[in-house]
Amino acid sequence: MPKLEAYDKSLPYSYAPGLFPATECLRNAPERCLRLLLHSRSAESEGAAGLRAAAELAGVRAETADRVLARISGKENCFAAMVYRKEEGAFDETSPHLVLHHPGDAGNLGTMLRTALGFGFLNVAIIRPAVDSDDPRVTRASMGAAFSLHVRHFASFEEYERACPGRRLYPFMLTGSVTLAQAAAQAQMPLSLVMGNEATGLPEEFARKGVPTRIPHSGRIDSLNLAVAAGIGMHAFASALRERAQEQI
Amino acid sequence: MPKLEAYDKSLPYSYAPGLFPATECLRNAPERCLRLLLHSRSAESEGAAGLRAAAELAGVRAETADRVLARISGKENCFAAMVYRKEEGAFDETSPHLVLHHPGDAGNLGTMLRTALGFGFLNVAIIRPAVDSDDPRVTRASMGAAFSLHVRHFASFEEYERACPGRRLYPFMLTGSVTLAQAAAQAQMPLSLVMGNEATGLPEEFARKGVPTRIPHSGRIDSLNLAVAAGIGMHAFASALRERAQEQI
Repeated sequence: MPKLEAYDKSLPYSYAPGLFPATECLRNAPERCLRLLLHSRSAESEGAAGLRAAAELAGVRAETADRVLARISGKENCFAAMVYRKEEGAFDETSPHLVLHHPGDAGNLGTMLRTALGFGFLNVAIIRPAVDSDDPRVTRASMGAAFSLHVRHFASFEEYERACPGRRLYPFMLTGSVTLAQAAAQAQMPLSLVMGNEATGLPEEFARKGVPTRIPHSGRIDSLNLAVAAGIGMHAFASALRERAQEQI
Repeated sequence: MPKLEAYDKSLPYSYAPGLFPATECLRNAPERCLRLLLHSRSAESEGAAGLRAAAELAGVRAETADRVLARISGKENCFAAMVYRKEEGAFDETSPHLVLHHPGDAGNLGTMLRTALGFGFLNVAIIRPAVDSDDPRVTRASMGAAFSLHVRHFASFEEYERACPGRRLYPFMLTGSVTLAQAAAQAQMPLSLVMGNEATGLPEEFARKGVPTRIPHSGRIDSLNLAVAAGIGMHAFASALRERAQEQI
């Protein structure tokens, strides 16, 4: 590997900064781990010692690299980072999909990935243009959830539909004609929740693509924060699918 | 007013940065507005012109202040900010409470305020120590929601309980014995949702303070993001209370 650079989306590798995200990367995507970077001050940390031992056991070289850590994280107190190879995920057949149409904010995307793992939405489709899902700020906000998910990118929503035909789509729209409670109560697999961009939402034509779903609120705000809306949506569908599964037992 | 300084929590005033938050401040808390700051480049913006006219109608002086805007926002492209007087809110009698125990992150706090306004949790109690709710980063993330809420601070949870006795408390805890669905189904007013700190959650003794509530998830994440968890909780309780009210009609 050449000299490690500050992250740029054109690089074939990225960084999972922080002890927890780096550990998640090693645990859930060991074949993608290239190198573990540790800060000299991390020597006193049990967590860092454990991570170093686990990395060496997995054949991942660990090295002390204070300056690289400061450069790639922009922080003085980043104690560890995993250098990992970027890779497109392969969707599984059974999990519901979260489809993110032009997500623009790194913190929101990371938070949505973390929530998706929490509610079993293991297949995440990102429709470009979008914030880079391998940006270290995304990985930090996700707490490394992406390494346990199947994250795939598509050049357009049409490309996603061609790759994954026959799914029941639930586009979340402020003007949706169906409330979230109604939509979730009739949820059918295979399903995809579709969330729009932070500033612009989904284009109006998405209302004809499935069950346009609305999260009722007081009307005293323009909209919910995207990551909050996605969390409420995934929670409602995950709860409904779980209840359905329990009824069938 | 003396020379405007970069924001510091000891100041009796703060800034609502951005056209939308500044407009919300003027609309919902006009008596607290001290001065409207506009960037010279905002002259071409219809939104800024409308805000200037509304401010002058309300007797709030508007002035062009490029350097002050850059200093207080830390950004070059902040086109407007309202200087406003800080003030403790007075709780209303009818709205449910959102109680935030030691919130530590400005973005999360702002997002939770925005969500609280969306779901009718108009009374927000903040238990100190906590991130400053008048920090401009909070106001920016909240889209100015705080100006439509009653935000009160307490030195301890006990002080909150003394000020607001006899409420049904729902502390959100990873170890909660009651699922969110069960808790919301039996929701009774007056109620308070209680959310802990990002890193540490609520202390264990909160389990004995009411109905310890758990948001079920896959167990593949440590916890949900705080603002996401608060959003899921407020949505569930708001939906249950709305259904209850409709049944009574």
